[in-house]
Amino acid sequence: MTVTASQVKELRETTGAGMMDCKAALTEAKGDMEKAVDILRKRGSATLQKKAGRVANEGIIDAYIHAGGKLGVILEVNCETDFVARNKDFKNFVHDLAMHIAAANPLWISRDEISPEVITKERDIYKEQALNEGKPEKVIDKIVEGKLEKFYERTCLLDQPFVKNQEITIKNYLGELVGKIGENIVIRRFDRYLLGEEE
Amino acid sequence: MTVTASQVKELRETTGAGMMDCKAALTEAKGDMEKAVDILRKRGSATLQKKAGRVANEGIIDAYIHAGGKLGVILEVNCETDFVARNKDFKNFVHDLAMHIAAANPLWISRDEISPEVITKERDIYKEQALNEGKPEKVIDKIVEGKLEKFYERTCLLDQPFVKNQEITIKNYLGELVGKIGENIVIRRFDRYLLGEEE
Repeated sequence: MTVTASQVKELRETTGAGMMDCKAALTEAKGDMEKAVDILRKRGSATLQKKAGRVANEGIIDAYIHAGGKLGVILEVNCETDFVARNKDFKNFVHDLAMHIAAANPLWISRDEISPEVITKERDIYKEQALNEGKPEKVIDKIVEGKLEKFYERTCLLDQPFVKNQEITIKNYLGELVGKIGENIVIRRFDRYLLGEEE
Repeated sequence: MTVTASQVKELRETTGAGMMDCKAALTEAKGDMEKAVDILRKRGSATLQKKAGRVANEGIIDAYIHAGGKLGVILEVNCETDFVARNKDFKNFVHDLAMHIAAANPLWISRDEISPEVITKERDIYKEQALNEGKPEKVIDKIVEGKLEKFYERTCLLDQPFVKNQEITIKNYLGELVGKIGENIVIRRFDRYLLGEEE
Protein backbone atom coordinates (compact mmCIF):
# COMPACT_ATOMS: atom_id res chain seq x y z
CA MET A 1 0.00 0.00 0.00
CA THR A 2 1.66 3.19 -1.17
CA VAL A 3 0.24 6.51 -0.03
CA THR A 4 0.61 9.22 -2.65
CA ALA A 5 1.85 12.73 -1.97
CA SER A 6 -1.41 14.17 -3.26
CA GLN A 7 -3.43 12.08 -0.77
CA VAL A 8 -1.24 13.35 2.04
CA LYS A 9 -1.67 16.91 0.79
CA GLU A 10 -5.46 16.54 0.63
CA LEU A 11 -5.62 15.09 4.13
CA ARG A 12 -3.41 17.87 5.48
CA GLU A 13 -5.66 20.48 3.91
CA THR A 14 -8.80 18.80 5.28
CA THR A 15 -7.57 18.28 8.82
CA GLY A 16 -4.75 20.71 9.44
CA ALA A 17 -2.70 17.81 10.84
CA GLY A 18 1.05 17.40 10.26
CA MET A 19 2.55 15.60 7.27
CA MET A 20 3.90 12.55 9.13
CA ASP A 21 0.61 12.10 11.04
CA CYS A 22 -1.32 12.26 7.78
CA LYS A 23 0.95 9.73 6.11
CA ALA A 24 0.65 7.31 9.03
CA ALA A 25 -3.13 7.71 9.19
CA LEU A 26 -3.50 7.13 5.46
CA THR A 27 -1.32 4.02 5.61
CA GLU A 28 -3.36 2.66 8.51
CA ALA A 29 -6.61 3.49 6.66
CA LYS A 30 -5.27 1.81 3.50
CA GLY A 31 -5.73 5.02 1.55
CA ASP A 32 -9.36 5.60 2.63
CA MET A 33 -9.54 9.37 3.13
CA GLU A 34 -12.58 9.34 5.41
CA LYS A 35 -11.15 6.65 7.68
CA ALA A 36 -7.85 8.54 7.83
CA VAL A 37 -9.68 11.65 9.04
CA ASP A 38 -11.34 9.58 11.78
CA ILE A 39 -7.98 8.11 12.84
CA LEU A 40 -6.46 11.58 13.11
CA ARG A 41 -9.41 12.85 15.08
CA LYS A 42 -9.24 9.95 17.51
CA ARG A 43 -5.60 10.85 18.11
CA GLY A 44 -6.63 14.46 18.64
CA SER A 45 -4.62 15.71 15.65
CA ALA A 46 -7.59 16.94 13.68
CA THR A 47 -10.87 18.71 14.33
CA LEU A 48 -14.05 18.25 12.36
CA GLN A 49 -14.74 21.00 9.92
CA LYS A 50 -17.06 21.44 7.04
CA LYS A 51 -15.42 20.19 3.88
CA ALA A 52 -13.86 23.35 2.66
CA GLY A 53 -11.50 21.83 0.14
CA ARG A 54 -11.19 24.68 -2.29
CA VAL A 55 -11.01 23.88 -5.94
CA ALA A 56 -8.94 26.16 -8.12
CA ASN A 57 -11.78 28.53 -8.88
CA GLU A 58 -12.17 32.25 -8.77
CA GLY A 59 -15.43 34.08 -9.22
CA ILE A 60 -18.23 35.80 -7.37
CA ILE A 61 -21.00 34.93 -4.97
CA ASP A 62 -23.89 37.33 -5.40
CA ALA A 63 -27.43 37.62 -4.09
CA TYR A 64 -30.62 39.39 -5.06
CA ILE A 65 -33.57 40.09 -2.80
CA HIS A 66 -36.87 40.95 -4.46
CA ALA A 67 -40.28 42.20 -3.42
CA GLY A 68 -39.31 43.50 0.02
CA GLY A 69 -37.85 40.23 1.19
CA LYS A 70 -40.43 37.79 -0.14
CA LEU A 71 -38.10 36.26 -2.72
CA GLY A 72 -34.34 35.82 -2.79
CA VAL A 73 -31.59 34.26 -4.87
CA ILE A 74 -27.99 33.39 -4.07
CA LEU A 75 -25.59 32.17 -6.73
CA GLU A 76 -21.97 31.37 -7.47
CA VAL A 77 -20.36 31.97 -10.84
CA ASN A 78 -16.78 30.86 -11.40
CA CYS A 79 -14.06 32.18 -13.68
CA GLU A 80 -10.37 31.41 -13.94
CA THR A 81 -8.69 34.48 -12.47
CA ASP A 82 -9.38 36.98 -9.75
CA PHE A 83 -8.73 39.65 -12.38
CA VAL A 84 -11.88 38.58 -14.25
CA ALA A 85 -13.82 38.23 -10.98
CA ARG A 86 -13.31 41.96 -10.52
CA ASN A 87 -14.24 42.79 -14.14
CA LYS A 88 -17.33 44.99 -14.48
CA ASP A 89 -18.92 42.98 -17.31
CA PHE A 90 -18.49 39.79 -15.30
CA LYS A 91 -20.04 41.38 -12.20
CA ASN A 92 -22.96 42.71 -14.23
CA PHE A 93 -23.51 39.29 -15.78
CA VAL A 94 -23.63 37.65 -12.34
CA HIS A 95 -26.08 40.21 -11.01
CA ASP A 96 -28.25 39.94 -14.14
CA LEU A 97 -28.32 36.18 -13.58
CA ALA A 98 -29.43 36.60 -9.96
CA MET A 99 -32.32 38.80 -11.07
CA HIS A 100 -33.14 36.45 -13.93
CA ILE A 101 -33.30 33.43 -11.60
CA ALA A 102 -35.61 35.35 -9.24
CA ALA A 103 -37.97 36.11 -12.13
CA ALA A 104 -37.73 32.97 -14.27
CA ASN A 105 -37.50 30.32 -11.54
CA PRO A 106 -35.31 27.71 -13.28
CA LEU A 107 -35.23 24.24 -11.73
CA TRP A 108 -31.84 23.23 -13.12
CA ILE A 109 -28.75 25.00 -14.52
CA SER A 110 -28.47 22.82 -17.62
CA ARG A 111 -30.49 19.98 -19.12
CA ASP A 112 -27.66 17.53 -18.32
CA GLU A 113 -28.64 17.79 -14.66
CA ILE A 114 -32.16 16.46 -15.17
CA SER A 115 -32.54 12.84 -14.07
CA PRO A 116 -33.53 10.33 -16.80
CA GLU A 117 -36.67 9.50 -14.77
CA VAL A 118 -37.94 13.07 -15.04
CA ILE A 119 -37.37 13.12 -18.79
CA THR A 120 -39.04 9.73 -19.27
CA LYS A 121 -42.05 10.93 -17.30
CA GLU A 122 -42.26 14.13 -19.35
CA ARG A 123 -42.12 12.13 -22.60
CA ASP A 124 -44.89 9.81 -21.38
CA ILE A 125 -47.11 12.72 -20.48
CA TYR A 126 -46.54 14.51 -23.80
CA LYS A 127 -47.22 11.30 -25.69
CA GLU A 128 -50.52 10.69 -23.90
CA GLN A 129 -51.50 14.33 -24.34
CA ALA A 130 -50.90 14.07 -28.10
CA LEU A 131 -52.76 10.76 -28.34
CA ASN A 132 -55.69 12.19 -26.35
CA GLU A 133 -55.78 15.14 -28.74
CA GLY A 134 -56.12 12.61 -31.59
CA LYS A 135 -52.81 13.41 -33.26
CA PRO A 136 -51.74 10.84 -35.90
CA GLU A 137 -49.28 8.21 -34.67
CA LYS A 138 -46.54 9.14 -37.14
CA VAL A 139 -46.15 12.72 -35.86
CA ILE A 140 -46.26 11.83 -32.16
CA ASP A 141 -42.48 11.52 -31.75
CA LYS A 142 -41.92 14.88 -33.33
CA ILE A 143 -44.53 16.50 -31.11
CA VAL A 144 -43.00 14.89 -28.01
CA GLU A 145 -39.52 16.17 -28.91
CA GLY A 146 -40.91 19.64 -29.56
CA LYS A 147 -42.66 19.72 -26.19
CA LEU A 148 -39.53 18.44 -24.46
CA GLU A 149 -37.58 21.29 -26.02
CA LYS A 150 -40.17 23.72 -24.60
CA PHE A 151 -39.84 22.01 -21.22
CA TYR A 152 -36.08 22.70 -21.26
CA GLU A 153 -36.72 26.31 -22.20
CA ARG A 154 -39.03 26.72 -19.22
CA THR A 155 -36.96 24.87 -16.63
CA CYS A 156 -33.23 25.03 -17.48
CA LEU A 157 -31.40 28.25 -16.75
CA LEU A 158 -29.11 28.00 -19.79
CA ASP A 159 -32.05 27.36 -22.13
CA GLN A 160 -34.27 30.12 -20.74
CA PRO A 161 -34.73 33.38 -22.65
CA PHE A 162 -32.95 36.11 -20.68
CA VAL A 163 -35.64 38.13 -18.86
CA LYS A 164 -34.06 41.47 -19.72
CA ASN A 165 -33.65 40.56 -23.40
CA GLN A 166 -35.93 37.76 -24.59
CA GLU A 167 -34.13 37.64 -27.95
CA ILE A 168 -31.24 35.71 -26.42
CA THR A 169 -30.97 32.74 -24.08
CA ILE A 170 -28.80 32.72 -20.95
CA LYS A 171 -26.48 30.39 -22.89
CA ASN A 172 -26.12 33.05 -25.59
CA TYR A 173 -25.46 35.75 -22.98
CA LEU A 174 -22.84 33.55 -21.32
CA GLY A 175 -21.22 32.71 -24.66
CA GLU A 176 -21.01 36.38 -25.55
CA LEU A 177 -19.30 37.17 -22.26
CA VAL A 178 -16.84 34.27 -22.59
CA GLY A 179 -15.96 35.52 -26.09
CA LYS A 180 -15.41 39.05 -24.81
CA ILE A 181 -13.43 38.11 -21.71
CA GLY A 182 -11.55 35.11 -23.11
CA GLU A 183 -11.83 33.04 -19.96
CA ASN A 184 -13.99 30.04 -19.14
CA ILE A 185 -17.01 31.03 -17.04
CA VAL A 186 -19.16 28.48 -15.22
CA ILE A 187 -22.50 29.01 -13.48
CA ARG A 188 -21.75 26.82 -10.49
CA ARG A 189 -24.85 26.75 -8.29
CA PHE A 190 -27.84 28.75 -7.11
CA ASP A 191 -30.62 28.67 -4.54
CA ARG A 192 -33.91 30.49 -4.89
CA TYR A 193 -36.00 31.09 -1.78
CA LEU A 194 -39.67 31.98 -2.03
CA LEU A 195 -41.18 33.01 1.29
CA GLY A 196 -43.22 30.21 2.85
CA GLU A 197 -42.71 27.69 0.04
CA GLU A 198 -42.43 24.02 0.87
CA GLU A 199 -38.96 22.68 0.25
CA MET B 1 -63.07 5.85 -2.07
CA THR B 2 -64.07 9.32 -0.92
CA VAL B 3 -62.07 12.30 -2.04
CA THR B 4 -61.92 15.03 0.58
CA ALA B 5 -62.47 18.72 -0.08
CA SER B 6 -59.01 19.53 1.24
CA GLN B 7 -57.41 17.10 -1.25
CA VAL B 8 -59.29 18.76 -4.08
CA LYS B 9 -58.20 22.17 -2.82
CA GLU B 10 -54.56 21.09 -2.65
CA LEU B 11 -54.66 19.64 -6.15
CA ARG B 12 -56.27 22.80 -7.51
CA GLU B 13 -53.58 24.92 -5.92
CA THR B 14 -50.82 22.69 -7.27
CA THR B 15 -52.10 22.38 -10.81
CA GLY B 16 -54.41 25.30 -11.43
CA ALA B 17 -56.96 22.84 -12.86
CA GLY B 18 -60.73 23.16 -12.32
CA MET B 19 -62.56 21.68 -9.36
CA MET B 20 -64.44 18.93 -11.21
CA ASP B 21 -61.28 17.89 -13.10
CA CYS B 22 -59.39 17.66 -9.82
CA LYS B 23 -62.11 15.62 -8.18
CA ALA B 24 -62.24 13.18 -11.10
CA ALA B 25 -58.46 12.86 -11.23
CA LEU B 26 -58.23 12.21 -7.48
CA THR B 27 -60.95 9.58 -7.67
CA GLU B 28 -59.18 7.86 -10.54
CA ALA B 29 -55.86 8.05 -8.67
CA LYS B 30 -57.51 6.65 -5.53
CA GLY B 31 -56.45 9.72 -3.57
CA ASP B 32 -52.77 9.60 -4.62
CA MET B 33 -51.89 13.26 -5.13
CA GLU B 34 -48.89 12.69 -7.38
CA LYS B 35 -50.79 10.31 -9.66
CA ALA B 36 -53.67 12.77 -9.82
CA VAL B 37 -51.28 15.49 -11.02
CA ASP B 38 -50.03 13.15 -13.74
CA ILE B 39 -53.58 12.33 -14.83
CA LEU B 40 -54.43 16.02 -15.10
CA ARG B 41 -51.26 16.72 -17.04
CA LYS B 42 -51.96 13.88 -19.48
CA ARG B 43 -55.37 15.44 -20.11
CA GLY B 44 -53.68 18.79 -20.65
CA SER B 45 -55.43 20.42 -17.67
CA ALA B 46 -52.29 21.06 -15.66
CA THR B 47 -48.72 22.16 -16.29
CA LEU B 48 -45.70 21.11 -14.27
CA GLN B 49 -44.54 23.69 -11.86
CA LYS B 50 -42.16 23.74 -8.97
CA LYS B 51 -43.97 22.85 -5.77
CA ALA B 52 -44.86 26.28 -4.56
CA GLY B 53 -47.50 25.24 -2.05
CA ARG B 54 -47.30 28.12 0.37
CA VAL B 55 -47.65 27.39 4.02
CA ALA B 56 -49.23 30.03 6.22
CA ASN B 57 -46.00 31.83 6.95
CA GLU B 58 -44.94 35.41 6.84
CA GLY B 59 -41.40 36.62 7.28
CA ILE B 60 -38.32 37.76 5.42
CA ILE B 61 -35.77 36.36 3.03
CA ASP B 62 -32.48 38.18 3.43
CA ALA B 63 -28.95 37.77 2.11
CA TYR B 64 -25.49 38.94 3.09
CA ILE B 65 -22.46 39.04 0.84
CA HIS B 66 -19.05 39.28 2.47
CA ALA B 67 -15.47 39.89 1.44
CA GLY B 68 -16.19 41.30 -2.01
CA GLY B 69 -18.24 38.34 -3.17
CA LYS B 70 -16.16 35.47 -1.81
CA LEU B 71 -18.73 34.42 0.78
CA GLY B 72 -22.51 34.70 0.85
CA VAL B 73 -25.49 33.71 2.94
CA ILE B 74 -29.20 33.53 2.15
CA LEU B 75 -31.77 32.79 4.81
CA GLU B 76 -35.48 32.69 5.57
CA VAL B 77 -36.95 33.62 8.93
CA ASN B 78 -40.67 33.21 9.49
CA CYS B 79 -43.08 35.05 11.74
CA GLU B 80 -46.86 35.00 12.01
CA THR B 81 -47.93 38.31 10.52
CA ASP B 82 -46.78 40.62 7.77
CA PHE B 83 -46.90 43.39 10.37
CA VAL B 84 -44.03 41.76 12.25
CA ALA B 85 -42.20 41.01 9.00
CA ARG B 86 -41.97 44.78 8.51
CA ASN B 87 -40.90 45.44 12.11
CA LYS B 88 -37.45 47.00 12.43
CA ASP B 89 -36.27 44.76 15.29
CA PHE B 90 -37.31 41.70 13.31
CA LYS B 91 -35.47 42.93 10.20
CA ASN B 92 -32.36 43.71 12.23
CA PHE B 93 -32.46 40.25 13.79
CA VAL B 94 -32.66 38.60 10.37
CA HIS B 95 -29.77 40.65 9.02
CA ASP B 96 -27.69 39.98 12.15
CA LEU B 97 -28.35 36.28 11.62
CA ALA B 98 -27.18 36.44 8.00
CA MET B 99 -23.91 38.07 9.10
CA HIS B 100 -23.56 35.64 11.98
CA ILE B 101 -23.97 32.63 9.67
CA ALA B 102 -21.34 34.05 7.31
CA ALA B 103 -18.87 34.38 10.19
CA ALA B 104 -19.71 31.36 12.35
CA ASN B 105 -20.43 28.77 9.64
CA PRO B 106 -23.07 26.63 11.39
CA LEU B 107 -23.79 23.24 9.86
CA TRP B 108 -27.32 22.89 11.27
CA ILE B 109 -30.01 25.21 12.65
CA SER B 110 -30.67 23.14 15.77
CA ARG B 111 -29.24 19.98 17.30
CA ASP B 112 -32.46 18.10 16.50
CA GLU B 113 -31.45 18.16 12.84
CA ILE B 114 -28.25 16.20 13.35
CA SER B 115 -28.55 12.57 12.29
CA PRO B 116 -28.04 9.94 15.04
CA GLU B 117 -25.14 8.50 13.00
CA VAL B 118 -23.22 11.79 13.24
CA ILE B 119 -23.74 11.97 17.00
CA THR B 120 -22.74 8.33 17.50
CA LYS B 121 -19.59 8.93 15.51
CA GLU B 122 -18.75 12.03 17.53
CA ARG B 123 -19.26 10.13 20.81
CA ASP B 124 -16.96 7.32 19.58
CA ILE B 125 -14.25 9.76 18.64
CA TYR B 126 -14.44 11.66 21.95
CA LYS B 127 -14.36 8.39 23.86
CA GLU B 128 -11.25 7.16 22.04
CA GLN B 129 -9.60 10.56 22.46
CA ALA B 130 -10.23 10.43 26.22
CA LEU B 131 -9.00 6.82 26.46
CA ASN B 132 -5.88 7.68 24.46
CA GLU B 133 -5.23 10.57 26.82
CA GLY B 134 -5.32 8.04 29.70
CA LYS B 135 -8.44 9.46 31.37
CA PRO B 136 -9.95 7.14 34.05
CA GLU B 137 -12.86 5.01 32.85
CA LYS B 138 -15.37 6.47 35.33
CA VAL B 139 -15.08 10.05 34.03
CA ILE B 140 -15.16 9.11 30.33
CA ASP B 141 -18.95 9.52 29.95
CA LYS B 142 -18.87 12.95 31.52
CA ILE B 143 -16.00 14.01 29.25
CA VAL B 144 -17.82 12.71 26.19
CA GLU B 145 -21.01 14.62 27.08
CA GLY B 146 -19.00 17.77 27.70
CA LYS B 147 -17.28 17.50 24.32
CA LEU B 148 -20.61 16.82 22.62
CA GLU B 149 -21.98 20.02 24.17
CA LYS B 150 -18.98 21.89 22.71
CA PHE B 151 -19.66 20.24 19.36
CA TYR B 152 -23.23 21.64 19.41
CA GLU B 153 -21.90 25.06 20.32
CA ARG B 154 -19.57 24.99 17.33
CA THR B 155 -21.97 23.56 14.75
CA CYS B 156 -25.59 24.43 15.62
CA LEU B 157 -26.79 27.94 14.86
CA LEU B 158 -29.08 28.13 17.91
CA ASP B 159 -26.30 26.98 20.24
CA GLN B 160 -23.61 29.25 18.83
CA PRO B 161 -22.54 32.38 20.71
CA PHE B 162 -23.76 35.40 18.73
CA VAL B 163 -20.75 36.85 16.89
CA LYS B 164 -21.69 40.44 17.72
CA ASN B 165 -22.24 39.65 21.42
CA GLN B 166 -20.53 36.49 22.63
CA GLU B 167 -22.32 36.73 26.00
CA ILE B 168 -25.53 35.36 24.47
CA THR B 169 -26.36 32.47 22.15
CA ILE B 170 -28.49 32.84 19.04
CA LYS B 171 -31.21 31.00 20.98
CA ASN B 172 -31.06 33.72 23.66
CA TYR B 173 -31.20 36.46 21.03
CA LEU B 174 -34.19 34.79 19.39
CA GLY B 175 -35.94 34.29 22.73
CA GLU B 176 -35.44 37.95 23.60
CA LEU B 177 -36.98 39.02 20.30
CA VAL B 178 -39.94 36.65 20.65
CA GLY B 179 -40.58 38.07 24.14
CA LYS B 180 -40.44 41.62 22.83
CA ILE B 181 -42.58 41.05 19.73
CA GLY B 182 -44.97 38.48 21.16
CA GLU B 183 -45.10 36.36 18.04
CA ASN B 184 -43.55 33.02 17.24
CA ILE B 185 -40.40 33.39 15.13
CA VAL B 186 -38.78 30.47 13.32
CA ILE B 187 -35.41 30.33 11.59
CA ARG B 188 -36.55 28.28 8.62
CA ARG B 189 -33.52 27.63 6.42
CA PHE B 190 -30.21 29.03 5.22
CA ASP B 191 -27.51 28.39 2.66
CA ARG B 192 -23.94 29.57 3.00
CA TYR B 193 -21.77 29.74 -0.12
CA LEU B 194 -17.99 29.93 0.14
CA LEU B 195 -16.32 30.63 -3.20
CA GLY B 196 -14.84 27.51 -4.73
CA GLU B 197 -15.79 25.14 -1.91
CA GLU B 198 -16.76 21.58 -2.71
CA GLU B 199 -20.40 20.90 -2.07
